[in-house]
Amino acid sequence: MQRLLTPVRRVLQVRRVVQEASLVPASLLPAAHQRFSTVPAVPLAKTDTWPKDVGILALEVYFPAQYVDQTDLEKFNKVEAGKYTVGLGQTHMGFCSVQEDINSLCLTVVQRLMERTQLPWDSVGWLEVGTETNIDKSKAVKTVLMELFQDSGNTDIEGIGNTNACYGGTASLFNAANWMESSSWDGRYAVVVCGDIAVYPIGNIRPTGGAGAVAMLVGPKAPLALERGLRGTHMENVYDFYKPDMTSEYPLVDGKLSIQCYLQALDRCYTLYRQKIQNQWKQDGINQPFTLDDLQFIIFHTPFCKMVQKSLGHLMFNDFLSASGNRQTSLYKGLEAFRGLKLEDSYTNKDIEKAFLKASLDMFHKKTKASLYLSTHNGNMYTSSLYGCLASLLSRHSAQDLAGSRIGAFSYGSGLAASFFSFRVSRDASPGSPLEKLVSSTSDLPKRLASRKRVSPEEFTEIMEQREQFYQKVNFSPPGDKSSLFPGTWYLERVDEMYRRKYARRPV
Amino acid sequence: MQRLLTPVRRVLQVRRVVQEASLVPASLLPAAHQRFSTVPAVPLAKTDTWPKDVGILALEVYFPAQYVDQTDLEKFNKVEAGKYTVGLGQTHMGFCSVQEDINSLCLTVVQRLMERTQLPWDSVGWLEVGTETNIDKSKAVKTVLMELFQDSGNTDIEGIGNTNACYGGTASLFNAANWMESSSWDGRYAVVVCGDIAVYPIGNIRPTGGAGAVAMLVGPKAPLALERGLRGTHMENVYDFYKPDMTSEYPLVDGKLSIQCYLQALDRCYTLYRQKIQNQWKQDGINQPFTLDDLQFIIFHTPFCKMVQKSLGHLMFNDFLSASGNRQTSLYKGLEAFRGLKLEDSYTNKDIEKAFLKASLDMFHKKTKASLYLSTHNGNMYTSSLYGCLASLLSRHSAQDLAGSRIGAFSYGSGLAASFFSFRVSRDASPGSPLEKLVSSTSDLPKRLASRKRVSPEEFTEIMEQREQFYQKVNFSPPGDKSSLFPGTWYLERVDEMYRRKYARRPV
Repeated sequence: MQRLLTPVRRVLQVRRVVQEASLVPASLLPAAHQRFSTVPAVPLAKTDTWPKDVGILALEVYFPAQYVDQTDLEKFNKVEAGKYTVGLGQTHMGFCSVQEDINSLCLTVVQRLMERTQLPWDSVGWLEVGTETNIDKSKAVKTVLMELFQDSGNTDIEGIGNTNACYGGTASLFNAANWMESSSWDGRYAVVVCGDIAVYPIGNIRPTGGAGAVAMLVGPKAPLALERGLRGTHMENVYDFYKPDMTSEYPLVDGKLSIQCYLQALDRCYTLYRQKIQNQWKQDGINQPFTLDDLQFIIFHTPFCKMVQKSLGHLMFNDFLSASGNRQTSLYKGLEAFRGLKLEDSYTNKDIEKAFLKASLDMFHKKTKASLYLSTHNGNMYTSSLYGCLASLLSRHSAQDLAGSRIGAFSYGSGLAASFFSFRVSRDASPGSPLEKLVSSTSDLPKRLASRKRVSPEEFTEIMEQREQFYQKVNFSPPGDKSSLFPGTWYLERVDEMYRRKYARRPV
Repeated sequence: MQRLLTPVRRVLQVRRVVQEASLVPASLLPAAHQRFSTVPAVPLAKTDTWPKDVGILALEVYFPAQYVDQTDLEKFNKVEAGKYTVGLGQTHMGFCSVQEDINSLCLTVVQRLMERTQLPWDSVGWLEVGTETNIDKSKAVKTVLMELFQDSGNTDIEGIGNTNACYGGTASLFNAANWMESSSWDGRYAVVVCGDIAVYPIGNIRPTGGAGAVAMLVGPKAPLALERGLRGTHMENVYDFYKPDMTSEYPLVDGKLSIQCYLQALDRCYTLYRQKIQNQWKQDGINQPFTLDDLQFIIFHTPFCKMVQKSLGHLMFNDFLSASGNRQTSLYKGLEAFRGLKLEDSYTNKDIEKAFLKASLDMFHKKTKASLYLSTHNGNMYTSSLYGCLASLLSRHSAQDLAGSRIGAFSYGSGLAASFFSFRVSRDASPGSPLEKLVSSTSDLPKRLASRKRVSPEEFTEIMEQREQFYQKVNFSPPGDKSSLFPGTWYLERVDEMYRRKYARRPV
């Protein structure tokens, strides 16, 4: 059992001599990491121009080892069959016992990423965490993750952490890419971590929970490159979902307002994104409107799956309104009744929603449905939701299907902060290519989800009550069977009388 | 009285048509901003290489309008005279009543920055907040600041916020500069905001509090340019100061451990910084050790002023240990007894501390003391402490004194995250130059500090009790006289039954 030393004791130990971790040339690094052949130990020599194709090289998803079935929850909550499974589009919901907290989730996912890629710990020069599961108002999750780097002597890792509801992971991804294109980049990799435990009080909002974490290795020459200059962002002060009650793990939610804010932000971001890409096209002499046809796949932050399907319909309504009269007639048959309406009308007009949900159904199946695999089976992972969608998309398509495509991505965090941006997938899908390696690394997702333990709503409710009891408690060791965790999972071993947290890892 | 609309109501209003705020060319922007002549409305055309000299163009400091005198506190706490004023090096401590919170502090300082620079609100493309005064576990201060941009229609502003104790402002400053050197930069300015309310329970730790905020305008061709590639960072998992108790505004502090962690982090960061600058010099054919002589000014995160003086002595001990035998003899007279010691020895050996405190006294007066002006008179502003030191340095020196110098800066956030980095001051100090404008903008600091109201320890204690009572309370309007606030200060007007916060501004 690997253990973290008690921090206080450790810091009092005489330190090892300051190491020049970040200054070790690539040639001196151990050879072990070369096995994950698409990711070299140090990505590139630092240059004074932007490195090419900065984006996601590798991606790791973690979710808890137990779930509750939404059909069971429907019966338990005495609601009509289909309310959660069809109405929300959710079939299973993952959850954590008291043994896991935001630090342990992030420890697990980062260690898994590093083990899978077999990179040396000193090849990371930047790491930031996006989360809204804050259990300390001052101390960042990032500092706890530094434990993992301890043996390597690499403590020169920039980045801290971002919080704004479900947007923190995206903010960190943008920051990571910016670091890599700036003069601050020292030639090493960036790691973006996002994770959350989404829990709600008992009732009909509880089935919209979930839990999980995603870690992404960011570097140049990436198979999923962030498209430069193509981000439409919208931020605004709204109280749609927030966590002002410090005595509770639960958020305050105005569900109706939040859905409306999500759609309005989507409209704003998509409009800006289109303007920016059309401006780029114009500079290349191409004068045509951008539409959803220019995106081969589209992924969304997923509070619940049905919301995403509605959102795609909503984007099609955007395209419809922007289209010329001729295009409206030829491309959007049967939708003539909605000509002359405004975007604002759609927030309250259910006819628009229904018509465009139907009109976009085929597109939904082609471009978006595969991305909902993890969300359907695990629920809302907040900051990691969008990147779980990305992992799902990769796991349900072949590298050949994906090669050369553009993936549109909409990130939304209540409060609110939102961005529409895109990845360009590399063209090389040959065996052993970075893209093929990345895609195949996600292929175990269905098997891993299937290997989870199904827990009854009664037991799930008991565990949620336990979370309530232990929230803000000191001087305890979380109860529960460690063997119920997936191998290699970090867990909370003890909270001492001073709220200090100690973690241990289940053997791999 | 300017008021924020109730967010819920506002979001339900029909929105204005999506504006192309970020795409307006500079020539179309209003001319008003030209009055602050060193900061053009849009900094530069976007290019595909790094813009030159990215750094701080303008800087705004806010502190509350009342303070308690530390000699009064010594009497009130029945401790020997000099315990706080000499022992800590603190003469006055600013504090906030219930009328101010972290959102209002940041609203005030950002609005002041924008008004002083006379920049249009749509000239900002990035804004991030560093704070550890979190009053919501999910909703970022940044979202509240978006209210200020509302009338301009500019909602396309990237960046969210960083938290790790006093380091969040530095993390945001680095993120801002990275954004500006990356392909994500759209030619607009970045704004870095940091602010905190540092409060402690009654007793001898309470006099180490403070409150304030700093906003920095970041752009190219800056009079204070961040030196490229010169950052020594050290991060580690330690529980020296943290805020795990969500029911209280107060942190948990292990004071002795925190001081040791600060000094150890300083050693690590300074060592890395020296390695990096010496490597740069080597590439230019210069083979010589870096010492404190290569820094004309040195500023530090300031938990209390005496700590900074000790830290400078500590850095000199670093230089001493790194020096060759000859240099040790010639440059460090009277310190021979400390030869052959190790950095670690200094954490416990009081003789080393005393000797190097004395040896560095002259350097302290020349390079650091001026930077402590605000900290001495206002206390610890946490994330904004280091940038308050920078403002103090500028306010106490002429542009001529500063021109061409290198300013070393040490940022420390418990938990822990720390960096040693440097600014290069531009050479042009002529009247009307960006440097001269920046320096003169800080000249009102002493006058503004002197205009604050002195409050008795009794009244101060009552106000602290009020903060305790109102912490986490809902459905109230903060008591207190609005006219006691500085003109132009935003204040908390109401917290409704759903914890939603509404702010208003005292007329300028």
